[in-house]
Amino acid sequence: MSELEALSVRELNERLEHLEKTYGRFKEENLSLDMSRGKPCPEQLELSMEMLDVLSSTSPMETENGVDIRNYGQLDGIPEAKKLFAELLGVGPEEILVGGNSSLSLMHDAVARAMFHGVKGSERPWVQLPNVKFLCPTPGYDRHFGICELFNIEMINVEMTPEGPNMDQVERLVAEDEAIKGIWCVPKYSNPHGITYSDEVVDRFATMETKANDFRIFWDDAYTVHHLTEQPDQLKNLLAAAKEAGNADRVFMFASTSKMTFPGAGVAVMAASAENLEFLRKQLAAQTIGSDKINQLRHVRFFEEVESIEAHMNKHAAVVKPKFDQVLEAFRRNLGGKGIVSWSEPNGGYFISLDTLKGCAKEVVDMAGEAGVKLTGAGATFPYGIDPKDRNIRIAPTFPSTTELEKAMNVFCVCVEIASIKKLLGEK
Amino acid sequence: MSELEALSVRELNERLEHLEKTYGRFKEENLSLDMSRGKPCPEQLELSMEMLDVLSSTSPMETENGVDIRNYGQLDGIPEAKKLFAELLGVGPEEILVGGNSSLSLMHDAVARAMFHGVKGSERPWVQLPNVKFLCPTPGYDRHFGICELFNIEMINVEMTPEGPNMDQVERLVAEDEAIKGIWCVPKYSNPHGITYSDEVVDRFATMETKANDFRIFWDDAYTVHHLTEQPDQLKNLLAAAKEAGNADRVFMFASTSKMTFPGAGVAVMAASAENLEFLRKQLAAQTIGSDKINQLRHVRFFEEVESIEAHMNKHAAVVKPKFDQVLEAFRRNLGGKGIVSWSEPNGGYFISLDTLKGCAKEVVDMAGEAGVKLTGAGATFPYGIDPKDRNIRIAPTFPSTTELEKAMNVFCVCVEIASIKKLLGEK
Repeated sequence: MSELEALSVRELNERLEHLEKTYGRFKEENLSLDMSRGKPCPEQLELSMEMLDVLSSTSPMETENGVDIRNYGQLDGIPEAKKLFAELLGVGPEEILVGGNSSLSLMHDAVARAMFHGVKGSERPWVQLPNVKFLCPTPGYDRHFGICELFNIEMINVEMTPEGPNMDQVERLVAEDEAIKGIWCVPKYSNPHGITYSDEVVDRFATMETKANDFRIFWDDAYTVHHLTEQPDQLKNLLAAAKEAGNADRVFMFASTSKMTFPGAGVAVMAASAENLEFLRKQLAAQTIGSDKINQLRHVRFFEEVESIEAHMNKHAAVVKPKFDQVLEAFRRNLGGKGIVSWSEPNGGYFISLDTLKGCAKEVVDMAGEAGVKLTGAGATFPYGIDPKDRNIRIAPTFPSTTELEKAMNVFCVCVEIASIKKLLGEK
Repeated sequence: MSELEALSVRELNERLEHLEKTYGRFKEENLSLDMSRGKPCPEQLELSMEMLDVLSSTSPMETENGVDIRNYGQLDGIPEAKKLFAELLGVGPEEILVGGNSSLSLMHDAVARAMFHGVKGSERPWVQLPNVKFLCPTPGYDRHFGICELFNIEMINVEMTPEGPNMDQVERLVAEDEAIKGIWCVPKYSNPHGITYSDEVVDRFATMETKANDFRIFWDDAYTVHHLTEQPDQLKNLLAAAKEAGNADRVFMFASTSKMTFPGAGVAVMAASAENLEFLRKQLAAQTIGSDKINQLRHVRFFEEVESIEAHMNKHAAVVKPKFDQVLEAFRRNLGGKGIVSWSEPNGGYFISLDTLKGCAKEVVDMAGEAGVKLTGAGATFPYGIDPKDRNIRIAPTFPSTTELEKAMNVFCVCVEIASIKKLLGEK
């Protein structure tokens, strides 16, 4: 039996009274701390400032294939950018499309195009089908779910396990239902749990039977080099595995430099079979004259090679690891052993996921907000913003300073304990 | 009666024989000249090279409202960029959305969103209607037509006059047919004719009755400051006129710096009523975390104010005006007074439009191509690539050097005359 549950009603009430006084004092401090999004902090942004110097008015402006990057052309990216990202993602340059500043846009547009034109192998555009469904391992990334909502795609929750999505569930669902056309995955340091999918999960994704023959795995490899330890997680290459299984076309991979260089001024890429990309390029050509090649070259010149990206990401880790540790330490100190929460201890990514007692998450987030600590909305990590158990809270430790973080965690932990005690009292 | 028509069959045959010898000699030169797209030349690109120096690793990175441009945020643009483009387009900053590197993408996405979600005032998404039609003043811009083709939007040709689209036609069509949801316009220095719409045309657009209450004018103000003379054309402000008429929501304006700074690495904007933009922002938020704010600030710092943009565009004019003159001079010298062609003499923009005798355009473009002079495909300036009279050829003088242009025009004029004589002989 855990500590708080073991307390009598009187003891719980005493503890609650004490905590509410503390909470009251926090409110009087008029804090204003934002931990709602996975945003790099200013020290992280400083790490890439020299990228702004690599291209100047006197720099050569040609690609290795002789294209003037200042002019039109190169719809799907310059060769040196394709090469760099191909190496980073373990695919071929012909399997890379470099596009814009945001992998979110690439994902949105991939879904939008599938709705309007279908994907390679579709019998008809998805919008002409009676309904379209996506599997959503939960908790997951709210912006993925937002894209589905925008296009009226029905979302089906799939349980997350420490190895990745529950593949028994996934396999059963995709084998049964032709309307299931896709699944959202953050396979490495998942949002928000920080889970990296096991080789077995990747293999099952690569080989599983799908009723829909135009099923696509949206593999958002957002945190592929965003490690927090020197023993980073290893993710098996899905595109390679799917190719081996004869299912290359089911894979749409996405990544970006948003959290390597500058969010909003980075470079995003999509990786897929050459045939998938050929199909997409025709529609892409009607949408754009290509993405910013100067910024592509700026990134290539800044990084030069994958080893430099890795070295650069070690500098990021040196900034953010202490913040993750600080949050985890606060959890252990304030909430450990009380039997009211569990949390993830990720090896990378941008989030720590905390699960409260059933029915407490919304109250915790609201209370923290009232005390000036803005957290990701409770439920945001679930489709339609509905956490069926109202338990999951996503903590984004990177942006605040360590001083702010210390304060925010103190507030947060008090809120968690208050909500938990109220819940326990209600059950007694 | 014009010169060539006045010749006898024998005289025409002699002239044809002479021209074909000349053409044969051109072919032996193995030329490779590309005049197919409106591309700035390297000298024009050099004019903006200093823009690459205005932001460096030591520059302040905050907007005037204190936002770190290196991080997430500012979905629809930074305030200083909104202000600059608002002044340039004669609208309010709240009527500007700064988005990405390409106005083509903004137009594509505006159509895509209208199809999926409708626009403000739509009873339902356009994709759910039995059919959707757009008016297309012709000849016009092939990429506009490409967007319609992508979304299965039926295109209806509207005649161009020297004042703009034939407004009698436009008014009649939009008043009659609820399926007509939009019209494509390049209102200043139109593509390809170089026509600037008259005040009367703008007013009629602002005030006309439309059967569809969610009709939109796609006002692609691509060449708004791209003058070739010191007495530039003046375009009346459509958004202001439409506001006055109570029709503010029917206007979607677009512009970009693609041909001011760098194509592909510029900044694109959309201007529309604040209500239209509010409607769009909700969908935009699901697509993107915002466009490249560093590049926005780079542009703002490079230009500072509209006067500098105008001074900068004068430098562009100094480079390209001689090329336009060279083409026009070649036309006058080689084709003038022969009664076989007419051409536009624009005050700005990127193109000269030439009309051949009926049924000759495709042959001319093919012949020029065989001699190594690549032109915009005949028919490209019409919906579905079909020029009903096979007459229109779009000449893009900016990219080639003056030496290349001289050669290209010699080849081109010979091709025009050969095709014309064959046509005349066929009629005799």
